[in-house]
Amino acid sequence: MGINFVALAEKLTEKTIARRRDFHKYPESAWTEFRTAAIVADTLSALGYQVFAGDEVIDAQAMMGVPAAAELERHAKRALAQGANPQWVDKLQGGKTGVIGVLTCAKPGPTVGLRFDMDANDVVEAEDVSHRPFKEGFASVNRGAAHACGHDGHTAVGLAVAEILASVKEQLSGTIKLIFQPAEEGVRGARAMSVKGVVDDVDYFLGLHLGFNTKQTGQLACRIEGFLATTKLDAIFTGVPAHAGAAPEAGRNALLAAAAAALNLHAIARHSQGPTRINVGQLEAGTGRNVLPANAIIKLETRGTTSALNEYMFTESQRIIKAAADMYGVQVETREMGGAAGAENDLCLVERVEKVAEGLGIFKEIMPSCYFGASEDCTYFMERVQQRGGKAAYIMIGAALAAGHHDSRFDFDEAALTEAVALVSAAAADLLQA
Amino acid sequence: MGINFVALAEKLTEKTIARRRDFHKYPESAWTEFRTAAIVADTLSALGYQVFAGDEVIDAQAMMGVPAAAELERHAKRALAQGANPQWVDKLQGGKTGVIGVLTCAKPGPTVGLRFDMDANDVVEAEDVSHRPFKEGFASVNRGAAHACGHDGHTAVGLAVAEILASVKEQLSGTIKLIFQPAEEGVRGARAMSVKGVVDDVDYFLGLHLGFNTKQTGQLACRIEGFLATTKLDAIFTGVPAHAGAAPEAGRNALLAAAAAALNLHAIARHSQGPTRINVGQLEAGTGRNVLPANAIIKLETRGTTSALNEYMFTESQRIIKAAADMYGVQVETREMGGAAGAENDLCLVERVEKVAEGLGIFKEIMPSCYFGASEDCTYFMERVQQRGGKAAYIMIGAALAAGHHDSRFDFDEAALTEAVALVSAAAADLLQA
Amino acid sequence: MGINFVALAEKLTEKTIARRRDFHKYPESAWTEFRTAAIVADTLSALGYQVFAGDEVIDAQAMMGVPAAAELERHAKRALAQGANPQWVDKLQGGKTGVIGVLTCAKPGPTVGLRFDMDANDVVEAEDVSHRPFKEGFASVNRGAAHACGHDGHTAVGLAVAEILASVKEQLSGTIKLIFQPAEEGVRGARAMSVKGVVDDVDYFLGLHLGFNTKQTGQLACRIEGFLATTKLDAIFTGVPAHAGAAPEAGRNALLAAAAAALNLHAIARHSQGPTRINVGQLEAGTGRNVLPANAIIKLETRGTTSALNEYMFTESQRIIKAAADMYGVQVETREMGGAAGAENDLCLVERVEKVAEGLGIFKEIMPSCYFGASEDCTYFMERVQQRGGKAAYIMIGAALAAGHHDSRFDFDEAALTEAVALVSAAAADLLQA
Amino acid sequence: MGINFVALAEKLTEKTIARRRDFHKYPESAWTEFRTAAIVADTLSALGYQVFAGDEVIDAQAMMGVPAAAELERHAKRALAQGANPQWVDKLQGGKTGVIGVLTCAKPGPTVGLRFDMDANDVVEAEDVSHRPFKEGFASVNRGAAHACGHDGHTAVGLAVAEILASVKEQLSGTIKLIFQPAEEGVRGARAMSVKGVVDDVDYFLGLHLGFNTKQTGQLACRIEGFLATTKLDAIFTGVPAHAGAAPEAGRNALLAAAAAALNLHAIARHSQGPTRINVGQLEAGTGRNVLPANAIIKLETRGTTSALNEYMFTESQRIIKAAADMYGVQVETREMGGAAGAENDLCLVERVEKVAEGLGIFKEIMPSCYFGASEDCTYFMERVQQRGGKAAYIMIGAALAAGHHDSRFDFDEAALTEAVALVSAAAADLLQA
Repeated sequence: MGINFVALAEKLTEKTIARRRDFHKYPESAWTEFRTAAIVADTLSALGYQVFAGDEVIDAQAMMGVPAAAELERHAKRALAQGANPQWVDKLQGGKTGVIGVLTCAKPGPTVGLRFDMDANDVVEAEDVSHRPFKEGFASVNRGAAHACGHDGHTAVGLAVAEILASVKEQLSGTIKLIFQPAEEGVRGARAMSVKGVVDDVDYFLGLHLGFNTKQTGQLACRIEGFLATTKLDAIFTGVPAHAGAAPEAGRNALLAAAAAALNLHAIARHSQGPTRINVGQLEAGTGRNVLPANAIIKLETRGTTSALNEYMFTESQRIIKAAADMYGVQVETREMGGAAGAENDLCLVERVEKVAEGLGIFKEIMPSCYFGASEDCTYFMERVQQRGGKAAYIMIGAALAAGHHDSRFDFDEAALTEAVALVSAAAADLLQA
Repeated sequence: MGINFVALAEKLTEKTIARRRDFHKYPESAWTEFRTAAIVADTLSALGYQVFAGDEVIDAQAMMGVPAAAELERHAKRALAQGANPQWVDKLQGGKTGVIGVLTCAKPGPTVGLRFDMDANDVVEAEDVSHRPFKEGFASVNRGAAHACGHDGHTAVGLAVAEILASVKEQLSGTIKLIFQPAEEGVRGARAMSVKGVVDDVDYFLGLHLGFNTKQTGQLACRIEGFLATTKLDAIFTGVPAHAGAAPEAGRNALLAAAAAALNLHAIARHSQGPTRINVGQLEAGTGRNVLPANAIIKLETRGTTSALNEYMFTESQRIIKAAADMYGVQVETREMGGAAGAENDLCLVERVEKVAEGLGIFKEIMPSCYFGASEDCTYFMERVQQRGGKAAYIMIGAALAAGHHDSRFDFDEAALTEAVALVSAAAADLLQA
Repeated sequence: MGINFVALAEKLTEKTIARRRDFHKYPESAWTEFRTAAIVADTLSALGYQVFAGDEVIDAQAMMGVPAAAELERHAKRALAQGANPQWVDKLQGGKTGVIGVLTCAKPGPTVGLRFDMDANDVVEAEDVSHRPFKEGFASVNRGAAHACGHDGHTAVGLAVAEILASVKEQLSGTIKLIFQPAEEGVRGARAMSVKGVVDDVDYFLGLHLGFNTKQTGQLACRIEGFLATTKLDAIFTGVPAHAGAAPEAGRNALLAAAAAALNLHAIARHSQGPTRINVGQLEAGTGRNVLPANAIIKLETRGTTSALNEYMFTESQRIIKAAADMYGVQVETREMGGAAGAENDLCLVERVEKVAEGLGIFKEIMPSCYFGASEDCTYFMERVQQRGGKAAYIMIGAALAAGHHDSRFDFDEAALTEAVALVSAAAADLLQA
Repeated sequence: MGINFVALAEKLTEKTIARRRDFHKYPESAWTEFRTAAIVADTLSALGYQVFAGDEVIDAQAMMGVPAAAELERHAKRALAQGANPQWVDKLQGGKTGVIGVLTCAKPGPTVGLRFDMDANDVVEAEDVSHRPFKEGFASVNRGAAHACGHDGHTAVGLAVAEILASVKEQLSGTIKLIFQPAEEGVRGARAMSVKGVVDDVDYFLGLHLGFNTKQTGQLACRIEGFLATTKLDAIFTGVPAHAGAAPEAGRNALLAAAAAALNLHAIARHSQGPTRINVGQLEAGTGRNVLPANAIIKLETRGTTSALNEYMFTESQRIIKAAADMYGVQVETREMGGAAGAENDLCLVERVEKVAEGLGIFKEIMPSCYFGASEDCTYFMERVQQRGGKAAYIMIGAALAAGHHDSRFDFDEAALTEAVALVSAAAADLLQA
């Protein structure tokens, strides 16, 4: 095509960094990205994208781990106070903070989906001058939320890519679909967008992460393995209280049900087809020493290196939790609080992105392989695309880090932003061919 | 009435001892009392009683802990070889070895039920000359079975009472109902007769035991407390085997289900209304070290000082066992292997028997109270009689013992037999008044 | 002696009610009774008693369930602000809020100990006009603390008794020892005074409670049974955290240790010598769903109808908790947070008190028996007195209640105060004979 | 060297088959290989080897899963009756049925160790004419033992190799060490020889198996992966019995200790470094329904894909078993009943053997890789050799099978014997170079 995506990206560097810092200063945690999503929607609109948001892109039933209504309300008000466009905030109500921008290119062709996640972490950001965001004045002003995973960068990259692709759409074929996802932390948000069908028409799908296991600026990893499928689950046990001295037989013991569940969950048989995990990370039960405990909650997660292995763990868990409740004659309700699928990058897509990257000449190292070893709900999109015959891949773009992901001192080398913008734009353009 | 029951009993002393020794020599354990029951039936017939046996007095569905058909068959053949009347053995088939004799007195009046148990223990009797039955030639010839609880004496007493009451029936009013019960050991037999309705017409009911907590000949205890209601239960878990190394996820672990059941059964909440007990006495599971275990059995018992307390333990147990199976995705079948009710002697009946005993002048000590502290399925009859408005009591008649009950060297002072015959005959006659 | 204790008590009625209402308005929970104890100490001093407090009457090592230093400090300051004498508050520092008054009578004689408890409950008192203390302006001003068990009345009674006995001491023989105990709620305070030896010289000991199972004014119960010995225990498990997905083997799981402890604690074998209880009332463990949980706490209590039965439960518990920690390779620390002994009233003392009560002619009903069915740490004093040859009893003095003990609407008929003052004074005088 | 090992092997074919059939007819299970070992010793002696046996090659402390003395005695007598040389049987007493033959070659050089296992399985061999060994008259005459894993073939191969190598020793350099090991089944025997130091001087070590995952005659696999390290363990719990109704507190419950152990063993955390396994395959506890169970045994195995992973599982298991005993106040003894290490073939040795095999021209297929997926205690030798700087490999030599290993109808294509003899002789000779 002869488009110089590196030059286009560099032209936007200042704007991209400014956006990243703005998002960094006003971080919003999962399902409360009202301000972030409103800015995204405004920006995409201004660039000529058709914008969808709220109910249009989120299946309410499939949302997981949503904060209480009052908390959503509180965050929506904060967003307005911090300058969010009220029209969008209204559209995003109920925490449906996803946004999608669609742009039709000059000629018919494939649909290319690009996914960017927007949410911050529940972390109190470091507040001392050795932490650059604090020193330079863009540290979080929303205490308790902080962009400690780089999603501020992802969103800024997404908006720059949107601008570049819009500027060259006459030379491209097909449809550009930019997916701005809420609630990746806790792997809670992708399912609600995926179930809604937003990637059902996507032929090529790309997701990305800055940093992570590409900890040097200039690295690129496209051959990623080891996405862990996972389910995050709460089980709430409800029994009957009783005076522990006077009438123990009159109670129904939720604490013992939860304890029995925890022990037996950890005894789920290992699976011969690959690694699995189970963790009951929290158990809270009872109200007083002399009261037979009538309530309990366990918070757990299952994992597997494939969706099938995680499904095995999840199915076993469900049965065990139910049986533990039965054992003590208590009621139990389970709630899925998050989840991610297993995933495999499509090799042909990987090779195409690598070739584009080589062509750009800005990456010092294209890694021959990279192990993810964690969970990402981008996999729900990937799985859906692949199940319908499309190609999907998830890539990591190197960025030097000030501290590890989720650390209160997390920060990344902003030079990586421009590299990401160039690569993603160029790769998308490469795919947008008739 | 002026009948001298002591003299009548003494006249039968030799015959009663001979009968006891005959039963002692040919002991038959639970549900295999073919020879004993046949002799009882023949004797009652000869005395003019109307005799009912087998299906007429036993509810097959309510029989608990019955040996396998082949074993019943083997014992029936042994009984024939040891002189049992084939007609009765035929009638008793399937282990339905209960016998009832009914005699109508001269005038109308109440129905008086007397219960005698007939079965031996699964004990190998001592075989040395310091053990009187061996020395005097009436030790068990049926190795593995032995009368180590005195039921041989109970049956002999019952036949002597039958003879005496028949001889004085013209002076009595009402109906005599003599109940010869199988399978008291393991508390397995009474329920099947009780459910059949054999005591539904009984106005006064008496059961007895020689020895036990009245360990001196000449003692008598009528004010007995502490009958423990109990249920004996087997739970058989069936899972799916798998190679423990190659495919652990393919199995369904019956061993862990049984282990979880055992632990949680012992955690059943204590009851504020009185003492309860639970014991998983046996657990057998698995076939090999490297095979995921697909089968398991637990043998347990629950107890309570009342039927309601035992019912609480039993109900909890049932739910826990089912839930333990569900927890590991295995099947479970539970079988009731025995049981007894709680019981309370009717005080007015107790006082009447004590008065009769005083009148006879043969007891050195009438105990003011006596704690049973064990289970007796005679309680099923007592409960049924009382539920229908009748009066019931269980008494203990003192007998010096050579060794404790169920000991391989158990033997008792046969002088107690005559005292028992006199008392039971006299008490029955006292009740058989218009 | 010819002293009219009823008249003496009635003369103090107004003052006693006023004191009770003052204590009610300024309630102080366990180990923070700085103001209450200071008033008690001032009053006893003024009456001529020799007063001991703080370190003199409390063994610091034996204090259980003491609040953190900062909280003690906060409450001490509040007491000063609410008028407590700074000299006493200083002496009571560290929560050693016990006070003892000693008065020597005219002639030598026995030592009579009377015990009154002073602490309030951790309850938010009802604040509406249907609740008399609120309506009449003496409801708690220390939000979160409330006299919902009548200890305000106990303390007021104690001070009136102190005044009456001081006024008649010339007619009495022996020594009066008035024990004002902190921290009865949670059964935390008596042990620290008992271990200090404060009742080691006591020949006759009386403790009392208003209301409880004597719910009508005018009732009296001296023949009390069913004191439950108890131990309140916390077990704090400390393991090692680990990422549940990345390195589960690197952690040491405190949650599973606590769960295993809870289940197996409830499986402690029932005891044939009498009722026992175990309750793990609370379990809190873990910090996040995806972190192998490194910390856990269980809060439990054991009980038994005798000290020996509770000791059995406690000893078993200690071993099980330690083993559960070992099972998961975690550390555990156990802390005794409260406790009470079993107890039996001395019958001769009971009869003497009943005779005094009959003589006073103010009680409508002297109950033939009364089941306590709960725990009271007054039993520590009773046990200690009895072990050293003295006589001890605990009595209940009827009071009509507005709501049950520990209820936010608890209040009692203040007419009971005068009856209690009269009885306790008269009973003490009866015992103070040479 | 110019030696035609194929021709040498073929010359011995008839003798080798005859020997295999003799061993097959007189199978001896683990630690009872008295006749087999005696024949091996006699044969090696006759060939000029220096022979070591019994105490000289077995460390008694390190023997695992040895039958009781009486059973060893019984099998030793059977061996004598079946023609074993009494001098050797005497030397092998106590089940120390290992034999080693050493031969020094003409010139100095490396020590080459070759290992052959001799024991049969605890299997009842099929007895019908469709089973060739039965049809042709060499089926097991020692009912309950059968060569269902091909060790009869291994031993026969070993003796042929011994004969060939002895015949060409003048052309070789170094020392030939032939190790005939007992008790490979249950992975019980290698450790006792390895610990004794028998391979401490070995520079090159080869072990082999016929059939297994090379199920076609003419296949060869040298690049074997997936040896599972394992430990076989029994835990015997000893408590105190008690009457479950009368005095449950007097007992110490071994059944619950075993149940708690089983559950918590299965909850050992998964390991991030690779697959692990745990299986409690058997649990037997208790003697009667109404007796608090005083004894229990669990039979378990741990596995890991490396020795370190198995060691992790084993260490965790030991602690859990001990804690489970402590939890119920019972004693526990653990016994290692078998074990195997993880292993990796040395690639340079593998390549050398493959080259020799290619040179022989008798193998149709040399497999590029082969997954073992089971446990073999040959690994103990390999680990020891490698730890001391030597090279070790384990190879599989194809043989068509009539039924799977350990099946009652197991038999193999005896044509494989000659191929094995040729390859092992040639490979050893290749290594025996100065």
